[in-house]
Amino acid sequence: MNESEILAFIKNKVGSRSAKVEVPIGDDAALFRFNSDTSLLTIDSFYEGTHFSLDYFDLRDVGWKAVSAAISDIAAMGGAPECAMVSCGFSSPPSPEGVRSLIEGVLESLDACGCELIGGDVCRSPAGLLLTVAVAGTPPEGGPVLRGGAKSGDLIGVTGTLGDSAGGLSVLQTPRAGPASEYPRLENAHLRPKPRVTEGRLLSAAGVSAMEDLSDGLITDVGHICEMSRLGCIIESAYLPLSEELERLAESRDVDPLAWALSGGEDYELVFTASPDRFGDALKVLSSNGVRATKVGEMKPVDSGVRILSGAGEVIDPAGNGFEHFME
Amino acid sequence: MNESEILAFIKNKVGSRSAKVEVPIGDDAALFRFNSDTSLLTIDSFYEGTHFSLDYFDLRDVGWKAVSAAISDIAAMGGAPECAMVSCGFSSPPSPEGVRSLIEGVLESLDACGCELIGGDVCRSPAGLLLTVAVAGTPPEGGPVLRGGAKSGDLIGVTGTLGDSAGGLSVLQTPRAGPASEYPRLENAHLRPKPRVTEGRLLSAAGVSAMEDLSDGLITDVGHICEMSRLGCIIESAYLPLSEELERLAESRDVDPLAWALSGGEDYELVFTASPDRFGDALKVLSSNGVRATKVGEMKPVDSGVRILSGAGEVIDPAGNGFEHFME
Repeated sequence: MNESEILAFIKNKVGSRSAKVEVPIGDDAALFRFNSDTSLLTIDSFYEGTHFSLDYFDLRDVGWKAVSAAISDIAAMGGAPECAMVSCGFSSPPSPEGVRSLIEGVLESLDACGCELIGGDVCRSPAGLLLTVAVAGTPPEGGPVLRGGAKSGDLIGVTGTLGDSAGGLSVLQTPRAGPASEYPRLENAHLRPKPRVTEGRLLSAAGVSAMEDLSDGLITDVGHICEMSRLGCIIESAYLPLSEELERLAESRDVDPLAWALSGGEDYELVFTASPDRFGDALKVLSSNGVRATKVGEMKPVDSGVRILSGAGEVIDPAGNGFEHFME
Repeated sequence: MNESEILAFIKNKVGSRSAKVEVPIGDDAALFRFNSDTSLLTIDSFYEGTHFSLDYFDLRDVGWKAVSAAISDIAAMGGAPECAMVSCGFSSPPSPEGVRSLIEGVLESLDACGCELIGGDVCRSPAGLLLTVAVAGTPPEGGPVLRGGAKSGDLIGVTGTLGDSAGGLSVLQTPRAGPASEYPRLENAHLRPKPRVTEGRLLSAAGVSAMEDLSDGLITDVGHICEMSRLGCIIESAYLPLSEELERLAESRDVDPLAWALSGGEDYELVFTASPDRFGDALKVLSSNGVRATKVGEMKPVDSGVRILSGAGEVIDPAGNGFEHFME
């Protein structure tokens, strides 16, 4: 079974068995009702050898990214992260400096989002450094923004630029000519992504209809919105926001940057949908907070599937389909 | 750094930075205040090669035990587990039967405790099967029972029998003569421990002063109560409750079962302290619910340390000091 089959199996097996589970498995985070309050809850693993290599990550970046990726799931619901727990597996007894760096990275990311570290677990790992982060947060007033709320005709937007993380990974994996990086922003996008907590809150308040964070790549993630909203969509590749550094990298390597932007993953930007009459306001509220956001497509009836159009309006087949564990 | 040094470093580094963190790192679970409610939160990893082997665990038992160990932390605070999230790392694409067994074990354990599965994460592991479970629960009325509440002169009790899990592990690791196990209860204690949720709630209501679950072994775990309460204690080894099967196993192997009972770990029984005038009631309320509990010692001033007395009243040096990752 591959990743999505396993998740579908679990979702089907578990169902929604209690009214306390207000948003069950299948969204960025779950929403659970305790007594008076509801909380958003999510868990995310970050394993050496699967998600990162210590060839190009230092431990501070590992701590940062493990936490940021988990918090991004709360941001994607429009929520505020409140507290986090981190389980760390070390393959051998770590040095005090190593532990310090890792924890500093964890705390830097938490501090940037106003989130408290409340617990953890430390044990020996069978191989490599293993982190798992659980985060609890509070939903926005009016409830979290779900993946399943899009309507046909809604416009699709994304924050920031796309593909920088994948481009940065490619740079990090290439032996470097000199000491200074030619693409510091791309590397930083991969090593230290910043979850869009404020932006998620603003978009929720602006009345967007669906939202998700870009962890697996635009095609896969917008596919989740389509699936949960029982819709299709069109993505206009000519509109995809690309950074100047990514375009420069693509040119220097003579490759098309679209594959990175469509399927690269780990950008931790937000993709959202909003009705045409609200979409402009959503972009405006982000822009007045200094955040670029771009229209990239439109939701369509389910029979359209997820279609990617070239600049000339032709349907193109992207060179990858987003990150999938257990790709065979 | 070893496990306890790492945890001490983190605890010191994090401190308690927000009034919302009502019980910070250092207890079985944290207590965090959202708006009106407080929640108990814990995280626990269960890794192949570190915590279990598939030579003697089937996947259903793996799912059961990973969840039960995490829920036990909520039980140790007197709380009620409410919802859980499970992160699974598979080293290769799992079979549908494997996923089904694992998830069934997860759900059996959750169902036994009235806890909902609300989320998860599935990815490729660098080596072996990796599970991390986060659980959220509600504290008992009057607040959770902490490790730091014991007073000098309080009596120390434990639920159930001690050392069965360690004895069971020893049996499971020994090639078997015939198809049937001679020690089914010991094996079951290791493979499918049952967290003491009801017992924790009853003990909390009975006014016990401190409580912890027995995950690392009595010496280590009662040591945490001593440390957090700034006290010492005496454990009378002659009082330690041993099962008939454990005594039989020890006799057949010509070993002293005390090492298993004192340092074995993973019993997931509860150790608790109560003032002499409340201790009897605590035992009585458990007994009327069909649960054996036993007095095993007494809290003493801090200068006593953690002392283990033999039946003859001499201080003995146990053969182990409980489970510690990165023992050097």
